Amino acid sequence: MLTVNAYAAPSATDPLVPTTIDRRDVGTKDVLIAIRYAGICHSDIHTVRGEWGEVAYPLTVGHEIVGEVTEVGSGVTRHAVGDRVGVGCMVNSCRECENCRAGEEQYCLNGNVGTYAAVDRDGTITQGGYSTHVVVDEDFVLRVPETIPYEAAAPLLCAGITTYSPLSHWKVGPGSRVAVVGLGGLGHMAVKIAHAMGAEVTVLSQSLRKQEDGLRLGAKHYYATSDPATFEDLKNGFDLIVNTVSAPIDIDAFLGLLALNGTMVNVGAPPEALPLHVFSLFGNRRSFAGSGIGGIRETQEMLDFCAEHELAADVEVIAADRINEAYERVLTSDVRYRFVIDISTLA
Amino acid sequence: MLTVNAYAAPSATDPLVPTTIDRRDVGTKDVLIAIRYAGICHSDIHTVRGEWGEVAYPLTVGHEIVGEVTEVGSGVTRHAVGDRVGVGCMVNSCRECENCRAGEEQYCLNGNVGTYAAVDRDGTITQGGYSTHVVVDEDFVLRVPETIPYEAAAPLLCAGITTYSPLSHWKVGPGSRVAVVGLGGLGHMAVKIAHAMGAEVTVLSQSLRKQEDGLRLGAKHYYATSDPATFEDLKNGFDLIVNTVSAPIDIDAFLGLLALNGTMVNVGAPPEALPLHVFSLFGNRRSFAGSGIGGIRETQEMLDFCAEHELAADVEVIAADRINEAYERVLTSDVRYRFVIDISTLA
Repeated sequence: MLTVNAYAAPSATDPLVPTTIDRRDVGTKDVLIAIRYAGICHSDIHTVRGEWGEVAYPLTVGHEIVGEVTEVGSGVTRHAVGDRVGVGCMVNSCRECENCRAGEEQYCLNGNVGTYAAVDRDGTITQGGYSTHVVVDEDFVLRVPETIPYEAAAPLLCAGITTYSPLSHWKVGPGSRVAVVGLGGLGHMAVKIAHAMGAEVTVLSQSLRKQEDGLRLGAKHYYATSDPATFEDLKNGFDLIVNTVSAPIDIDAFLGLLALNGTMVNVGAPPEALPLHVFSLFGNRRSFAGSGIGGIRETQEMLDFCAEHELAADVEVIAADRINEAYERVLTSDVRYRFVIDISTLA
Repeated sequence: MLTVNAYAAPSATDPLVPTTIDRRDVGTKDVLIAIRYAGICHSDIHTVRGEWGEVAYPLTVGHEIVGEVTEVGSGVTRHAVGDRVGVGCMVNSCRECENCRAGEEQYCLNGNVGTYAAVDRDGTITQGGYSTHVVVDEDFVLRVPETIPYEAAAPLLCAGITTYSPLSHWKVGPGSRVAVVGLGGLGHMAVKIAHAMGAEVTVLSQSLRKQEDGLRLGAKHYYATSDPATFEDLKNGFDLIVNTVSAPIDIDAFLGLLALNGTMVNVGAPPEALPLHVFSLFGNRRSFAGSGIGGIRETQEMLDFCAEHELAADVEVIAADRINEAYERVLTSDVRYRFVIDISTLA
């Protein structure tokens, strides 16, 4: 067993504090990773604060992890000491259900094992990436291309794959008209990736405050959803809408923006029930869908796609002792566009 | 102008009564049809009673029309006197928008012209098929294959195409696991068509009352949705759910029955807003969709498919003077599975 430095939440209401956590011994198929950077995802905050259900404390979160392999088990074939690697939102799955066999481990019918706050195969609770090291089964470890700086790669492991997956699944490409709702951590990656795929991208944001950024990131158009004219002007205009907003929005109004066979896919997860009129789906044979992260094979494909198109996240690197301050800024959307913790400040 | 016998609603609350209505002169591209049978669709009742918005009275409804061509305009090329033909839910569209150009006139962005209660190109209000004759632009007239009896063909023009279209769009075929919610006019056609397409069909009905029928129509399984165990037993089990029920149902519960990339498509249209949790869509990357009738090209394809597979509707033929009684029975689901008016009783 390895005892390593980490930041953990002592309870749902206390700030995160420096501590140590235990990592299991490196098993036959395991990889030990010296973490370099860990992104801060809104899900981290929801989870440590118990907003998505009860969790066991103390809890270390973080599922946008990049670093270097420092040790491998005797049966490891995919990774070697010195490799640049990443770990995202899951660290295992049943590998036997029809979804796992289809390479869609994120939809494991027996429940994938989350990178933190989940029950690991040894019965312990998984602990995330706000720590100096992590031990992960090699099958859930990704290769991070040399050309992507570590800190800019970290958010790809959640924000990147969560937006890449629906864009890829709904076959976005040249000629696609894509709207991205919300320009935060997920939204800024959705814009970059959709643009790189060849789509004509429109950002739908509450205000025009980030318009300049949106256009720089690759959007061709930028509209404020606080302006009712937006919903008239853009009616029937999109093949795919990627909704990255976790707060409730007027689903019927957004569905009205979809063209024939268009889909609005939510990657943001408001906990409330949203009211929806079926009549909003009839016109243009519209769909309202959900998408959760992506499979391991697809996550590697996304990392390679980002390298090929010279994409990565726009980040603000912070020291570990600024995590709590960063949480407050995430909650007020005061970040462009992802906080990433420099794990050397934890050593 | 042609004055013909018909049944019409004098108001939203009065019973339908025999009357006469006017049909326009046969134009260059028009077809005059001597109607043989007209199906009774639940939409007819919603419309005459003003439940889907205000309408002008007196109003003749009916959009499941079959009969024989008795006159054609000088520019008509698709149909000839003596042909067996049908007319469904629409009699025109703009023909210029991107959806019309794609052959999906049902989704005409300028609004297709409904077979009744819509504003026709000459400014008059369209009147439906509970009448002896109708004049329709040839492009909105379908060929009814010789092998399908007129009375059993009539419901195909709405119930048939409304269920065929989503089954075809979502690529149902051998290996598909399809659930049909509700075994009424639409549901019984959905079961027959999905079965003919090669799918494994399950009926989800409130009770097991019609189980024997469901299995005879082509379903392999039949479950009662009033039994909570149904939602546990069938979890993650379907590729497509076709919901034909117009009353509100628990959308989240039904979404839980969808397998990876599964879609629940509503063809029933409850007017109320339905609450839905986005979390129900995340697992298995599920979609909730709507579908409205079908295009003209697809309607012809459906009729030809039904002929090839020796399918048609199960009908109860009635005389015109029993329309009001039939309406009451439709409202209590006391019909197996579609009332069809013998228009000779109107002559």
